[in-house]
This record gives sequence, C-alpha cells and structure tokens, in this order.
Amino acid sequence: MTRKAKVTIQDIARHAGVGVGTVSRVLNGHPSVSAETEATVRQSIAQLEYRPMAAAQTLRSRRSNVLGFITDMIATTPHAGQIIRGAQETAWHSGKVLFLVNTEGDPELERSAVDVMIDRQVDGLIYATMFHRSATVPSNIYAVPTVLLDCYVEDASLPSVVPDEFSGGYQATKVLIDRGHRRIAFLNHVEPIPAQRLRVQGYQAALADHDIPFDATLTSEAWSEPRGGYDAMKTLLHHPQRPTAVFCFNDRMAMGAYEAIRQQGLRIPQDIAVIGYDNQELIAANLWPGLTTMQLPHYEMGVWAVEHLLAELPATSEKGDSAERAPLQVKLACSLVLRDSV
Amino acid sequence: MTRKAKVTIQDIARHAGVGVGTVSRVLNGHPSVSAETEATVRQSIAQLEYRPMAAAQTLRSRRSNVLGFITDMIATTPHAGQIIRGAQETAWHSGKVLFLVNTEGDPELERSAVDVMIDRQVDGLIYATMFHRSATVPSNIYAVPTVLLDCYVEDASLPSVVPDEFSGGYQATKVLIDRGHRRIAFLNHVEPIPAQRLRVQGYQAALADHDIPFDATLTSEAWSEPRGGYDAMKTLLHHPQRPTAVFCFNDRMAMGAYEAIRQQGLRIPQDIAVIGYDNQELIAANLWPGLTTMQLPHYEMGVWAVEHLLAELPATSEKGDSAERAPLQVKLACSLVLRDSV
Repeated sequence: MTRKAKVTIQDIARHAGVGVGTVSRVLNGHPSVSAETEATVRQSIAQLEYRPMAAAQTLRSRRSNVLGFITDMIATTPHAGQIIRGAQETAWHSGKVLFLVNTEGDPELERSAVDVMIDRQVDGLIYATMFHRSATVPSNIYAVPTVLLDCYVEDASLPSVVPDEFSGGYQATKVLIDRGHRRIAFLNHVEPIPAQRLRVQGYQAALADHDIPFDATLTSEAWSEPRGGYDAMKTLLHHPQRPTAVFCFNDRMAMGAYEAIRQQGLRIPQDIAVIGYDNQELIAANLWPGLTTMQLPHYEMGVWAVEHLLAELPATSEKGDSAERAPLQVKLACSLVLRDSV
Repeated sequence: MTRKAKVTIQDIARHAGVGVGTVSRVLNGHPSVSAETEATVRQSIAQLEYRPMAAAQTLRSRRSNVLGFITDMIATTPHAGQIIRGAQETAWHSGKVLFLVNTEGDPELERSAVDVMIDRQVDGLIYATMFHRSATVPSNIYAVPTVLLDCYVEDASLPSVVPDEFSGGYQATKVLIDRGHRRIAFLNHVEPIPAQRLRVQGYQAALADHDIPFDATLTSEAWSEPRGGYDAMKTLLHHPQRPTAVFCFNDRMAMGAYEAIRQQGLRIPQDIAVIGYDNQELIAANLWPGLTTMQLPHYEMGVWAVEHLLAELPATSEKGDSAERAPLQVKLACSLVLRDSV
C-alpha cells in the first residue's frame, strides 16, 4: 500500500537536521529557537505533512474551531440539504469546520452524538431537524452553546430559527387572489405540525383581508405526498362549484394534484391555477408547467444559526456565560418563486 | 440561560464525598480504589453527567471510536442520501460515530477536512462522492486508513466500492427484451462519466446477446435532467420507425420523457415502455405510472465501505500497517425495481 505511516516528531528532527527538543520548542512557540532554525524546522513540517497532535493542542487552547451539527435526517433525506449548505458556508467563512452527525432521530444516538461532540470539544452545536417542529433535545446539549435550527423547544430555553409559515401561507394565497381568483382551495397536510396549522391560518387571513368568505368545503387534508394530493384533488374537482385555484401544502401534493387535473382534461393554469410550497428540488422546476411555490428559508436559517452561535461563543473559554437574557426565537420569511402554474 | 457550566472533576469529588485524587484513580481504572468507593464515584459521574476530557483519553488510547466521512455534496443534494444511511448504521452497530464533513468538492476544504479529522484522531476515513466517478483525493488522506465510496483513484492505491453500471445497463435492457421489445431506444447522459460509458455498453451487450442489431439512430445524448430527457424523447418520437421502449440514463431524464410521450397522446407502457435508473426518491415512485428503474446500491456501498474500513483498522495503533496487498476495487450490483412503466 502507498499509505504513509504517521509522521513523528523524530522524522521532523531527522529531516531538519536538529534535535527532537528543538522541534518540540518550535511546535510550542518557545522563544529560545533562532529564526533560521525555526524556518528550517517549519519547512520540514510542511514537506513531511506533519500534523501535530491536535488533541494535545486543544487541551491547551480549549478552542477547537469545530462546530457540531446534529440532525435527525437532513443528510440522508432529499428535503432540506440547503440547511446544511447555509450552515457550512457560514462556518467556513469564519474558519470553522462543521462536523455533522445524522442520527435518524434516535434519542439514544442523539445523546451519544452530543457526548462525542463535547468530548471533541466543539465550540458549539447546531441542532437541526428535517422539517419545522417542536423538538425534545437531549439534556446534555445544555453543556455547550447550542442553537436550534428548523425546530424549537417548548420552554424557549435555547435560541431557535424557524420559517414564518403564517406569512408564507398568506403570501401564497395573495398571489392567487391578485390574479383574480376567489374560489381558492387549500389541500392541507393531515398531521398537526406547525406548518400544517400556520399555513392554513395565513390562507384564511388572506381571504378575510380581501373579503372572500372562507368556504370549508374547499379545504381538505391528506398525506403530504403525491398520492395524497392526487386523491384530494380528484375529489375537489367534483365539487359542484369547482375552485379556479388550489394552494397545496407542499410541492409533493402539488405533483399529485397536477396528475388529477391532467386526467380531467383540464389545463394548468388556464383552467385551474396551482401553487405549492417548499420549492422542492427535483420537483418544483421540473413539473409541466413549472410550479409556482413558496421557498423555505433553508439556506438562510443555516446562515442565521451559525452566525448566532458564533456570536454567542465566549471570546475566551474561561469567561463564563454571556449576559442573562432570553434566547432569541426567530422566524425567517419564505419567498415566492414564480413559475408558470398560476 | 439554563445552560449548565461544564462539570469538573472537583464537582464529582465534592458530590461523592471523596478526594479529587480518588476520582482521578477511578477514571483511570487504578486498582487501588475499593469497589464501594468506585461505585459511589461512578454514581456521581452519572448523576452530574460528567464527561471526562476525551482528548486526554484519546491521547492515551489512540483510538477514538469516530470514523470520518468526507463527501463532496451527498449531505446537501437530494441524490444519494442512502450512502450516508448505510455507512452510519454500520458504524453505529460497531459502536462508532460517523462525523461528516461536506465540502462541496472544494479541494482546499477537502484537505482541511482531512486535517481536522486527523487532528481529532478519527480511526479511519470514508471519502464519498455524490455520483460514481474518478476522484482526486487530497494527499494527506493517505495518513489514515481510508476507503473510497462511489468513486476510485486511477492508480487504485486506495480500496474502493462503486456500482456495477455495466451489469445494471444489461439488466435494464434485458427487462425490455424479455417483454418482447426489439426497438429499444437509449437516452444517454452527455458527459463521459463511468455511468454514461458503462450503462450503454451493458445495453449494447444485452442487444447483442439477444441477436438484436444495434441501431445508433435509436440512441441519443442530452443533459441528464428532465428537460434533456423531454427534448431527446420528443425527437425520438418522430423517428420513422418509432421505438416501442426506451431506456433512460436516469429517472430525471425519464421524468421528461414521460411528458414528451404524454404530449404525443401516447400511453406508458402500452404504446411505449420506459425504464429509468437510480430509483430516485421523490421521482421514481411518484410518476404516473410508477417508473420501473434500476436502484443504485447506495445503502449497500455505505455498508461495505464502513465494514471494510473497520476490518482494515489495526487492532492496536502501534501494530503498523496491515499486510501488503493491493487495495480491493469492488463493484456492487444494481437491483431492478419493477413498477408499471414496462
């Protein structure tokens, strides 16, 4: 094998033609080494690709330049990768590396992941979930600065950033109203998660603000997958007063709604306008016609979480906690992505 | 804030009613501590959720129980999350935690990621790519046991596991031949990556084995996205001798081919059968009709890579490299997922 053996301090000494003690003094920044000798040793360190034992260095400095990122399943599912991208790019710009552990939501693994992260003396932790929800975090997470991403704890004891689902629901509905629609259906998800509760509230508020009476027969709930959207849409198309537009809880339901509409020989958007939610990669831009949708602030939440975490870190490790104040609970706006379905 | 201060060895001593030296001896497994005292100290450790300084422990043991997983973009893109799932589950079963760093393919970041991983004394590294390709790995990766996942280095100096694209292309074509098709089109990707070269070779071999002459006018190349598949399929549908079946390089192209077929008023599979590749989450099962496709061995490659890495680790750190032998270059089979499009 071409695998190299780990370079030791002895190798450096031999290569530089100095004693082991001299190499050690250079590594420890000892003032007794001449500039020439130091240059020679540093050249050997570079050429041999020597890595000093970082564990020992970390013990001294107590700052690791690593942030931990613990998630239920963002790394393994296709739904929210931009969360990671926003976080990692922000970390890089601050000279930090992001160590991810993906736990699939197993509480024991989460706890171990936090332990291992703390063992490795990460500067702080991001705890992120695949969709916006209330979270139960492992209790050991409070031992290090932590920011919650796309989730929150009920007692608001940790800072958090989540999407503003209400205003997103409002905005999506207003897009349809602005194009003259007044019979606007809403295909909702069936589980009582924040997005399910808040998007429909935004929809109702937008209707009310435009003097459109809420008609419960134009709303229905189903699993937020293409099949659920297909079935719900099929039923809705038999409504005696067919809606002229439909707001789908997510793009996956919209994908199914498209098929139901197509099977009825109707056209999008001429016969019925469709708006989705998520701007889901692989789906939204690739439907025919392209799907107008609300983009979740995944990237932006990743950025915010890391920036907030870095701001929270004590300037030196022994300085203690930052001033007592309530952890921020932040909502970031969703943005409209206009395509051809409305 | 409710954030807890880090528990120290002094806190443990106070809680257990013993001296700091006794706690230290328990932590270091020193034989001079009585069983009763040890039980008391361990109880305090558990109650206070004390984490010993793992960096110090690692310095002694040289084994960290952490595997590093460096990838270009698997964590942020929706294409290959099962690679991570296979790797992480196998790691967990062996009591290891997988630390992921997602570099977006930036060579400098890759190098830093390897450095940081080595600094943290990971037991070994997985280097994984989002699609099957030749990789240029950072040179510092050779300092630790490393397995390549979904990629390989040209000089075969590191063990690797990739999908068997040739046999996958053969099998997909044979599915169509077995259903009586003889005019089988192939919509290929346009970049000369391994999957592009090898799947079409499998297609040609299957035709040859069944005495079907290869007809170059039934093949075309386009970007492997829905739009590319749509355009290529549209052209193909005007072929004077229209194919009765089409093998698409991937499910995203098949998604576009579906639309082109539908716009011509043709039915799948009655008028034209379609087979894809990837079993892409969000697409394959959700098209109408469900898409028959070849599943990449993402999960299985993740499992193989971690198992192989663990087998390669020296039993004790000072034992040196394992016996000289050529690093394994492994191909894993793709599997057929039958739905309703053939």
